[in-house]
Amino acid sequence: MITINDIQSAHNRIRPFIHNTAVLTSTSLNNISESSLYFKCENFQKSGSFKIRGVANALLQVHKDHSSKGFVTASSGNHGAALSMVATYLGCNATIVMPSNAPEIKIQNVKKNGGEIIWCKPNQNSRDQILQKTLDETGGILIHPYNDYRIIAGQATAALELIEKYKDLDMLVAPLGGGGLLSGTISSVKQINPRIQVYGAEPYQADDGYRSIISGRIQENLTTDTICDGLRAQIGIIPFSIIKENVDAILRLKEDQIIEAMRFAWECLKIIIEPSCAITLAAILHNKQIFRGKKIGLIITGGNVDLDNLPW
Amino acid sequence: MITINDIQSAHNRIRPFIHNTAVLTSTSLNNISESSLYFKCENFQKSGSFKIRGVANALLQVHKDHSSKGFVTASSGNHGAALSMVATYLGCNATIVMPSNAPEIKIQNVKKNGGEIIWCKPNQNSRDQILQKTLDETGGILIHPYNDYRIIAGQATAALELIEKYKDLDMLVAPLGGGGLLSGTISSVKQINPRIQVYGAEPYQADDGYRSIISGRIQENLTTDTICDGLRAQIGIIPFSIIKENVDAILRLKEDQIIEAMRFAWECLKIIIEPSCAITLAAILHNKQIFRGKKIGLIITGGNVDLDNLPW
Repeated sequence: MITINDIQSAHNRIRPFIHNTAVLTSTSLNNISESSLYFKCENFQKSGSFKIRGVANALLQVHKDHSSKGFVTASSGNHGAALSMVATYLGCNATIVMPSNAPEIKIQNVKKNGGEIIWCKPNQNSRDQILQKTLDETGGILIHPYNDYRIIAGQATAALELIEKYKDLDMLVAPLGGGGLLSGTISSVKQINPRIQVYGAEPYQADDGYRSIISGRIQENLTTDTICDGLRAQIGIIPFSIIKENVDAILRLKEDQIIEAMRFAWECLKIIIEPSCAITLAAILHNKQIFRGKKIGLIITGGNVDLDNLPW
Repeated sequence: MITINDIQSAHNRIRPFIHNTAVLTSTSLNNISESSLYFKCENFQKSGSFKIRGVANALLQVHKDHSSKGFVTASSGNHGAALSMVATYLGCNATIVMPSNAPEIKIQNVKKNGGEIIWCKPNQNSRDQILQKTLDETGGILIHPYNDYRIIAGQATAALELIEKYKDLDMLVAPLGGGGLLSGTISSVKQINPRIQVYGAEPYQADDGYRSIISGRIQENLTTDTICDGLRAQIGIIPFSIIKENVDAILRLKEDQIIEAMRFAWECLKIIIEPSCAITLAAILHNKQIFRGKKIGLIITGGNVDLDNLPW
């Protein structure tokens, strides 16, 4: 796990760059889920997602002399937008390798925040190849979206804020893509209050994480054909080692369950959230044997949704 | 004006029934507007709008002996949903006279909260006739959506919370429909800090309020063909008398300006807000000569939007 000292140092370091985001509740969703839900609203976070936590923690630790050639990453969108925002703030370049099927709004967010986009095909091989080529050509520093201790320590601060504010939660649920958020969440929760259970939520259509945990070693995605564009990445080695030992379970959800939960959240909470985090609500609604009667925190990771292309 | 004592009594009375709603900010919207905006998020309020403030204040003052025949109102939606929610909580019936062009989600909210709907045509005459007939038939108590001192005192508590939290605001902007919210906002602001300016925002397509203030006596709507379904009502006598003497100005907006502002709010704040309050943001964006460089509070009145029927 990331040590609690590293997480608290990260929190102190990034505090001027982030919002301590609101936590919302909904009587209607409590009734539907038969539990008490606390939504940690990182969709209200700067750059529109939690990703700025990890990025700010990483970039603020890179010495200025080393950052003159800029920063490079591969991202389906939110990490790239966050990296672009923080790099621009620090007066550095950001180059983002993005898959050709990234949502339009996430492409626009990278551009708006000053990042340069290099396109790759929507698979891990193309992503890796183009990323390496870009690193070679620019001489920039790689800021991996999740396979990096500094990134994970930053992402861990979302759960830290949540459990510091709501001390009597029974469980937390976070989405599982590359694993940065889930491994960070686990690191905060299990060190501060090991009584709290932590669940990961993953689409059936990109369930490399679930199969990796079950088999004990990293498995590739068989498909990434999911509406959860933020959860299509391959689980990272560092997050995997943390998640494998400490997660209470990974719960898989179907596409229609995710879309239904997204709509419930929009209608009842009046907030705009992505499918990639609506999956946490879907996990609760479709696993009542686990969650009924409990106080549950959900990490709502982002709100960068293309309003011209809604899934209903 | 409603006295500050009545407003504070209302606040104490309704506090167990309402949320002290969050205030959100957005760097992007500050940049676009060239000002500092503070969004008082009544879209997160119980029943999905600020209307529960006035309704709770009124119903909690009606003696139990008088409420056995239930409560009756005419409402395009949010007032009706709020009345239904509070009446049901108190064990009373609620009958809501609704226009046939009310949005589907507002119809569903009334039903979900236990109210009974009686339909009228979408004009003031039909509304008044059916309302009187319903009152005669049920013997219920009329809870007018805005022409009632208790309602206005309740609505005034939204601005009260905002200016108590942000003491250095220069201006507030609230939508103008029947006038309950705007007259309540004026009552709170001008008694606590008369230095703060208060503006009303109204659609050109339902500008009875503007024309009434300019001419000095109540004018009828020439059309109610606006996307702002919450602002189609005729300004009430009591709100008019308060607004006329104390408002700094009424600003009128076009339909496309309202829709554009609604989309900006969804994209930048990641919250779901109705056209009827997006109009306050439109007012700021299209009157920069008034608002540039100022600290401005906006009352975001509700978030009950039909997600299958978005205006873009």
